[in-house]
Amino acid sequence: MATLKLKLQLLHNGEIAMGPGKAELLDAIEVTGSISAAARSMGMSYRRAWLLVDVMNRCFAEPLVETHPGGGKDAGAKVTEAGKRAREAYGALVEMAGAGADGFALEGLRRMLKPE
Amino acid sequence: MATLKLKLQLLHNGEIAMGPGKAELLDAIEVTGSISAAARSMGMSYRRAWLLVDVMNRCFAEPLVETHPGGGKDAGAKVTEAGKRAREAYGALVEMAGAGADGFALEGLRRMLKPE
Repeated sequence: MATLKLKLQLLHNGEIAMGPGKAELLDAIEVTGSISAAARSMGMSYRRAWLLVDVMNRCFAEPLVETHPGGGKDAGAKVTEAGKRAREAYGALVEMAGAGADGFALEGLRRMLKPE
Repeated sequence: MATLKLKLQLLHNGEIAMGPGKAELLDAIEVTGSISAAARSMGMSYRRAWLLVDVMNRCFAEPLVETHPGGGKDAGAKVTEAGKRAREAYGALVEMAGAGADGFALEGLRRMLKPE
């Protein structure tokens, strides 16, 4: 059956404050306890992961990720309480968007497709 | 205020049967009456537009776009009745996903952002 892929980005001051990549990065930091390990586990460069964290921390009133000061690239990092709340709200948002779309119009589109 | 950007793709047999780019292309073909003019109006190459049309026509049971036979690159093209129905159902889908997401979780996320 045809499936729906949903990508949801929260735009704030011309930047993407939250989206699928940033949500996945928060999860990976939560698990690995460091930005560089999280980046590795996602096949992402350290520089790119650091930039995503920086955008999140600039967009939100409280930082979503805290790094240990003076530790450099291999220092530990953790998702703050604000980070956990933001991650959770984003997950709920994605779920609700999916639930909203999963109705009559989707069935109509599916019925128009060729058999698989 | 932070806005939500929603990208919705309908996956079918490993291909994207419908998504934002294809929906916009259908609109442009409807307006311009040709694939090459539609591509130009979107700043897209003719080759890419043609490929997107080809994917749609292979995924759906009835073709969404009809080209005049033997006309080559500058021949006219039109969105079929099936194409109009698919375009409309996709639009409804996007709207309903947005409506689904536009609630409590979004407000929660918005309130966590820095002032603009």
